[in-house]
Amino acid sequence: MDLTKIENPAFLKKCSLAELKSLSTEIRNFLIQNVARTGGHLSSNLGVVELTIALHTVFDSPKDKIFFDVGHQCYTHKILTGRAKDFSTLRQYGGISGFQKRSESVHDVWEAGHSSTSLSAALAMAVSRDLNNENYHVIPVIGDGALGGGMSLEALNQIGSMQKKMIIIFNDNNMSISQNVGALTYAFANLRSSKIYTTTKNDVKKILNRNNAGKVAYDMMNAVKETVKKNVVESSIFGEFNLEYLGPVNGHDIQALIRTLEAAKSKDKPVVVHVMTKKGKGYKPCEEDKEGVWHGVGPFDPMNGRMLSTLPRGHLSWSSVMSETVLNLAKENENIVAITPAMIQGSKLEKFFTAFPDRSFDCGIAEEHATTFAAGLALEGKRPFLSIYSSFLQRAYDQINHDIARMDLPVVIGIDRAGLVGEDGDTHHGVFDISMLRSLPNMILAQPKDAKEAQNLLYTAFMQDHPFAIRYPRGSIFYNTLIEYTPIEIGSWVAYNETDSNKCIVISYGVDVDRILSKVITNKMDVCIVNARFFKPLDENMLLKIAQRHLPIIIYETDMLAGGLSSAILEWCCDQECSMKIKRIGIKDKYVSHGSLLQIKKENKIDINTLFDEISIYLKEKE
Amino acid sequence: MDLTKIENPAFLKKCSLAELKSLSTEIRNFLIQNVARTGGHLSSNLGVVELTIALHTVFDSPKDKIFFDVGHQCYTHKILTGRAKDFSTLRQYGGISGFQKRSESVHDVWEAGHSSTSLSAALAMAVSRDLNNENYHVIPVIGDGALGGGMSLEALNQIGSMQKKMIIIFNDNNMSISQNVGALTYAFANLRSSKIYTTTKNDVKKILNRNNAGKVAYDMMNAVKETVKKNVVESSIFGEFNLEYLGPVNGHDIQALIRTLEAAKSKDKPVVVHVMTKKGKGYKPCEEDKEGVWHGVGPFDPMNGRMLSTLPRGHLSWSSVMSETVLNLAKENENIVAITPAMIQGSKLEKFFTAFPDRSFDCGIAEEHATTFAAGLALEGKRPFLSIYSSFLQRAYDQINHDIARMDLPVVIGIDRAGLVGEDGDTHHGVFDISMLRSLPNMILAQPKDAKEAQNLLYTAFMQDHPFAIRYPRGSIFYNTLIEYTPIEIGSWVAYNETDSNKCIVISYGVDVDRILSKVITNKMDVCIVNARFFKPLDENMLLKIAQRHLPIIIYETDMLAGGLSSAILEWCCDQECSMKIKRIGIKDKYVSHGSLLQIKKENKIDINTLFDEISIYLKEKE
Repeated sequence: MDLTKIENPAFLKKCSLAELKSLSTEIRNFLIQNVARTGGHLSSNLGVVELTIALHTVFDSPKDKIFFDVGHQCYTHKILTGRAKDFSTLRQYGGISGFQKRSESVHDVWEAGHSSTSLSAALAMAVSRDLNNENYHVIPVIGDGALGGGMSLEALNQIGSMQKKMIIIFNDNNMSISQNVGALTYAFANLRSSKIYTTTKNDVKKILNRNNAGKVAYDMMNAVKETVKKNVVESSIFGEFNLEYLGPVNGHDIQALIRTLEAAKSKDKPVVVHVMTKKGKGYKPCEEDKEGVWHGVGPFDPMNGRMLSTLPRGHLSWSSVMSETVLNLAKENENIVAITPAMIQGSKLEKFFTAFPDRSFDCGIAEEHATTFAAGLALEGKRPFLSIYSSFLQRAYDQINHDIARMDLPVVIGIDRAGLVGEDGDTHHGVFDISMLRSLPNMILAQPKDAKEAQNLLYTAFMQDHPFAIRYPRGSIFYNTLIEYTPIEIGSWVAYNETDSNKCIVISYGVDVDRILSKVITNKMDVCIVNARFFKPLDENMLLKIAQRHLPIIIYETDMLAGGLSSAILEWCCDQECSMKIKRIGIKDKYVSHGSLLQIKKENKIDINTLFDEISIYLKEKE
Repeated sequence: MDLTKIENPAFLKKCSLAELKSLSTEIRNFLIQNVARTGGHLSSNLGVVELTIALHTVFDSPKDKIFFDVGHQCYTHKILTGRAKDFSTLRQYGGISGFQKRSESVHDVWEAGHSSTSLSAALAMAVSRDLNNENYHVIPVIGDGALGGGMSLEALNQIGSMQKKMIIIFNDNNMSISQNVGALTYAFANLRSSKIYTTTKNDVKKILNRNNAGKVAYDMMNAVKETVKKNVVESSIFGEFNLEYLGPVNGHDIQALIRTLEAAKSKDKPVVVHVMTKKGKGYKPCEEDKEGVWHGVGPFDPMNGRMLSTLPRGHLSWSSVMSETVLNLAKENENIVAITPAMIQGSKLEKFFTAFPDRSFDCGIAEEHATTFAAGLALEGKRPFLSIYSSFLQRAYDQINHDIARMDLPVVIGIDRAGLVGEDGDTHHGVFDISMLRSLPNMILAQPKDAKEAQNLLYTAFMQDHPFAIRYPRGSIFYNTLIEYTPIEIGSWVAYNETDSNKCIVISYGVDVDRILSKVITNKMDVCIVNARFFKPLDENMLLKIAQRHLPIIIYETDMLAGGLSSAILEWCCDQECSMKIKRIGIKDKYVSHGSLLQIKKENKIDINTLFDEISIYLKEKE
């Protein structure tokens, strides 16, 4: 069928099983072909094609509320709810999002991007439904990785206690982005192998009563009840949370899925449907991927799975620059350990994990625990490198504040994906961390302009004794391994193109420093560029010097303005009673949507052309 | 014995059981008498007297690392490690802290104040020990409330997976501050009633094999293994996390405790020792308390349990002002619901919970889930009042950002205990929330100066459609129930004592506004006072007016300066190209310790006298 003609999922109810099966094949091909062109999340979406078809066949969206934890696995849901025609614009500026978005469709009833929020939302929906005397189903779909996140377990705790009707789809592929870790993976594995396709206590009773041997066994079980605490169903991890359990069911068998979902539908309390899926199902390169390379991808050749985008010559991803350096430093300093919350591949820590398995810790999707764990290691004399994406570091604000900064512990925090990230959109832009961390005492916060500075900053960070966060963006940078490191004075900035005749001063940070400098030099503009590589502490000597020049100043940020670098400088000016003429460029009070960096920067008037428009005003003024 | 003579816990090893028992009575009396004088945490400390004695008898602190989750239950630990003599200074300025503090004693190996961090720290210690080829025990003590927090479960997940040797003391009193909630309470209750004082799979096998009936039962169990997944021990919640379980043991039976701890000591992997304690044990008013009134107390008469501190006439606690108002508003608006993470009593929500049980939600110690749960309720048309202490709200930064603010949902966040809290110290001061929330788009952030404004702000908050956070301090305020509410224009400030001859302008917020105003009027100072009751949005009209007056301005804050109100005003000035002469008073870049509000404000130069010293400079200048 022509997928782009689908307007809503109602047609599914009239489809034969054969038609649904054929539809799943078509959708899978559509996904591979489209993501090959646009890039996007692939493996997780290929894993839930049949599951999503079954969900929309059994339930009535949007009356029934079907939604996905994190949300990057919603592509089939988008196709079935009338958005196949928009897939050429996936994750592009003005196009459809790679996540569920309420503004896009009435079928998108919850939004996320960060993990483990769906169960809290589901309980809220079920509670609201009952308070309003309404009648519909609430169906969150959550993976085994996300289920191990603390928030999910907190929600399960209340769901099991309140017993509101809902159907939790436990999408078990035994992977987060890469292979799962943690004790719960054993609990899940036990369930997977348990082959109990049935479910309530009574069902078990029935099975056991079927023959005499069973009867004896059941009586015996009762006899040893004082010691044998629970029966088979209650004893699962879900049983411990007082939740009914259905499964496991083969997530690629539409018929079995429909049958199980229909059974779940009849329950009047929370039930967990355990669906076993294969991440990347139906596309060999994805199926064989254990590291998560195919979790989120750029354009590729669907015939052979060859990724089309390659790094510029001599370039390395920022993540690699950092992890290579940590690896090199760790060879000399045996106290250096590395910690990641389920992001070995994204943070490029594979080599470190291979080289130092005893000094490497994948904490699972658990930013909070990972952060306090890092604090504990630092307290015991280790030198942890805690690598977390900026937007996920938000989960650990209290742990950074209460555990790391308050105890003044030397954890080196690698804030990966800092700044705007582009296509992943509002939930993933790492634009809040400067404001978030700047008010924390003892904290040092820096950002290198290039790979050389990155290496020296890391070297410096491991040499000193305070919490030291280094932010670095998505993307790549020219890289040469340093033979020798040079410590960087903490809080020191660097001024470039400083002349007596400078017309204005631009203060910026990160990769923009060299971009601005190169454009200034190429165009022979008499502009001084300051690399404000430390957000905290500030370079007070440099600021004094700047203040004494009485030149107009432009502070160019591509993160939130409120509480950011310019805010820090303004506070300093106020306290020092220095008056400076400052123009601030940065993200105003709004969330930035998805699109290429260029497009979203332009929309938010923080692109480099906007900066140079401002510069040109000052160049003219002084002419 | 004279408790003040204790220098370290080594003497315990030489004590007879009778001596240990008598010691526990002495310590209990000491605690009651001392806390009656100084105030402090009482019930939780009375509950762990025997447990702490047993721990220090069996283990060798500080070589073995004994520490307490949250930490307010460490009083017996402090006594046994040589600090009984300092108890008259408990929680007082310059005195000993109510929590564990590394600076106080080598026996305090971890610090906290917030819940659920101990297991992450314990894993870090165990990992470090093994990396360093050292040999000691790691013994975190964690309550059932804290164990249900997401971070704890994240940590258990990795502890069960890594299998590092440690002894987790599960201090089960079936209470958080008040009675516990959540499905795990059933799981814990099952364990409590299981009467299995022994433990490993082999132990069970032995018990079952003891007689023939047992043998048959055991074989039968094996026979139905395909359906009966797990045996008794593995089936506990701890078994699901792959942890060995010992218990339950009576937490007030020193002999049983010592015996069980000795057994735990011999294990070479993580083991959970389930200790059943009674919160408030040995002091009747505490034992009978189900609401948590005796969790943290001021001075009281130990003879009859009468609290000595009473509110000033006509006063109500800020928490009560807010919850009374929400209750009144909820009578008219059936969509209003109330949410608390285990703080019904602290947040004074008892009446609301009684009046509207279906619209009241205690989420347990789970700030993150509670916050996203609130987001979900708002999305479904409810009007949630989410009440969280400021310093615990730090746990929910990402949920406020990613779920509430990003989706622009009308959750009313009651930020209780905002600002300095006094005796609880650095972990509890709510001084970061302005900086934390100010950079979030869509967020409205306000603080009332008195109870009337509080009521009108709440009324306003429930009338509009955006995230609206209202912060209010510890302590009490004069209160009259409003008959009629007046909406407050969002972002509007109020100027008092505005004259043509004003010598300067003080911008402040909260209860300080009236304090300053009253002192200004009493002393006939020609000073204008601005009540900046909104931190976001700012009152731009008022700011323009202020700028045009060209008067010196003092911004008086008692929260973190970085990113706070003055920061917002400076940003506005910069963007509007308004120059103002501003002097900022507020907390500089450091954590504030414990003590009375007056003392810690004085130490940090943010007391009202410091403000008036500044004011007097301007009054003189213009004379």
